[in-house]
Amino acid sequence: MDKVERIGVSLEPELLAEFDAMLNEKGYQNRSEALRDLIRKELSNKQLEDPDAKAVGVVSLVFDHHTAKLTERLLHLQHSHLLQTISSLHVHLDHRHCLEIIVLQGLVNEIQSVGERMISLKGVKQGRVNLISGQD
Amino acid sequence: MDKVERIGVSLEPELLAEFDAMLNEKGYQNRSEALRDLIRKELSNKQLEDPDAKAVGVVSLVFDHHTAKLTERLLHLQHSHLLQTISSLHVHLDHRHCLEIIVLQGLVNEIQSVGERMISLKGVKQGRVNLISGQD
Amino acid sequence: MDKVERIGVSLEPELLAEFDAMLNEKGYQNRSEALRDLIRKELSNKQLEDPDAKAVGVVSLVFDHHTAKLTERLLHLQHSHLLQTISSLHVHLDHRHCLEIIVLQGLVNEIQSVGERMISLKGVKQGRVNLISGQD
Amino acid sequence: MDKVERIGVSLEPELLAEFDAMLNEKGYQNRSEALRDLIRKELSNKQLEDPDAKAVGVVSLVFDHHTAKLTERLLHLQHSHLLQTISSLHVHLDHRHCLEIIVLQGLVNEIQSVGERMISLKGVKQGRVNLISGQD
Repeated sequence: MDKVERIGVSLEPELLAEFDAMLNEKGYQNRSEALRDLIRKELSNKQLEDPDAKAVGVVSLVFDHHTAKLTERLLHLQHSHLLQTISSLHVHLDHRHCLEIIVLQGLVNEIQSVGERMISLKGVKQGRVNLISGQD
Repeated sequence: MDKVERIGVSLEPELLAEFDAMLNEKGYQNRSEALRDLIRKELSNKQLEDPDAKAVGVVSLVFDHHTAKLTERLLHLQHSHLLQTISSLHVHLDHRHCLEIIVLQGLVNEIQSVGERMISLKGVKQGRVNLISGQD
Repeated sequence: MDKVERIGVSLEPELLAEFDAMLNEKGYQNRSEALRDLIRKELSNKQLEDPDAKAVGVVSLVFDHHTAKLTERLLHLQHSHLLQTISSLHVHLDHRHCLEIIVLQGLVNEIQSVGERMISLKGVKQGRVNLISGQD
Repeated sequence: MDKVERIGVSLEPELLAEFDAMLNEKGYQNRSEALRDLIRKELSNKQLEDPDAKAVGVVSLVFDHHTAKLTERLLHLQHSHLLQTISSLHVHLDHRHCLEIIVLQGLVNEIQSVGERMISLKGVKQGRVNLISGQD
């Protein structure tokens, strides 16, 4: 942080004690850091409610790598859309299952729609689309 | 609040500006109130991760009131468990559908299990189980 | 159901066995009922992603009933909006805390905005906005 | 799928029509594939409610790469726990922000606890912990 402002917060002693206990458990060094994280999370959730907001999507897919043409179809989806695929990571979970993580950049509704198309492919057994709001 | 403590929080001017804009939009009177709400929400979510924590459950069910014996079965579930049903509210949505809201008290996993049994009843078309953590 | 169609589903024996075990645990009488519930839940979640979709909102608020003018402000919010408040339920949780459940009808984004304004009121300690999609 | 079983499902024509429209939008080739996905998602969500279930965690972190010692601390967390870090992916979002995706294997509660510790590190601006249930 280059420049900071300082604000005061009043709260009940019991609430503060519970908050401190949680910070300790999560490994926070100080309350300001934890409160900044809470504020950022709230702002981010709010932002991602807008289908037209810019976002980064992390699509996690578990699939059976014996499925014919699946990798091809996944690549096709990554290239046939207005979305920008930034990067991807491939992990071998066991002799049969792979985890592919695909990082996409675009609008919230585009990411969700492409993510759902990926999950719907034959051979994909589980999938999650995770959104991260654009940075300022 | 009978007694309050006051703590200081440092944050970047841009983050503070975005936070203030959100507070304004949500109708908050001051930052302390908003930060207390964020802290309480975080503590509550944490608490509800424990299947054995005490909680209040709000089960919302949409059902077709023409279904034979559904009300009877719902009542039976409310009485046959260790859970305490506190209250319920019945709303007529249209000529066919009703919304029933049932407030239960018990452990997180008990509430979830009874809520799921209610949702699984024939005639129930949609259902949600909402958890509220116990108050201090 | 007045009229039904019948479709066939093929699935691996292991997946079917796990599905049957879950149905049993949740209390389902048959697979069709469970699959219809899964389909309705998916359609409902999809529908509620649209900020302009019609919905019913269940707003659950825990508050300290000693807070001056809170009930007044809650009533004011219920009446000052385009939303239609259908009904509400008041539960005494303990000597200090009340649970108020307010059922609203309107568009997804209106319900969320009014719900957030309610949660932001001084004295409200916890709040959740739960959405139920419109029925066909 | 090496071997399949076939079950019949009865549902209202209106529900079937809405389901087919959603399948079409999501790109499904047939109903069985879509229903298998719904069943797997439900089983997976159920499984992940158990803090002691085996899972794969995908931790996504956005951080300011100018923060001193952050990468070091992240590495330390990946090595100081019982969890097995399988792999990680690093993406440059802009001149200041990086996205790091860390894939962990372990129990649900271990993954959540380590994920939270990572998110709580100074310099991490946003973070999400995403769980994927173990494969059969």
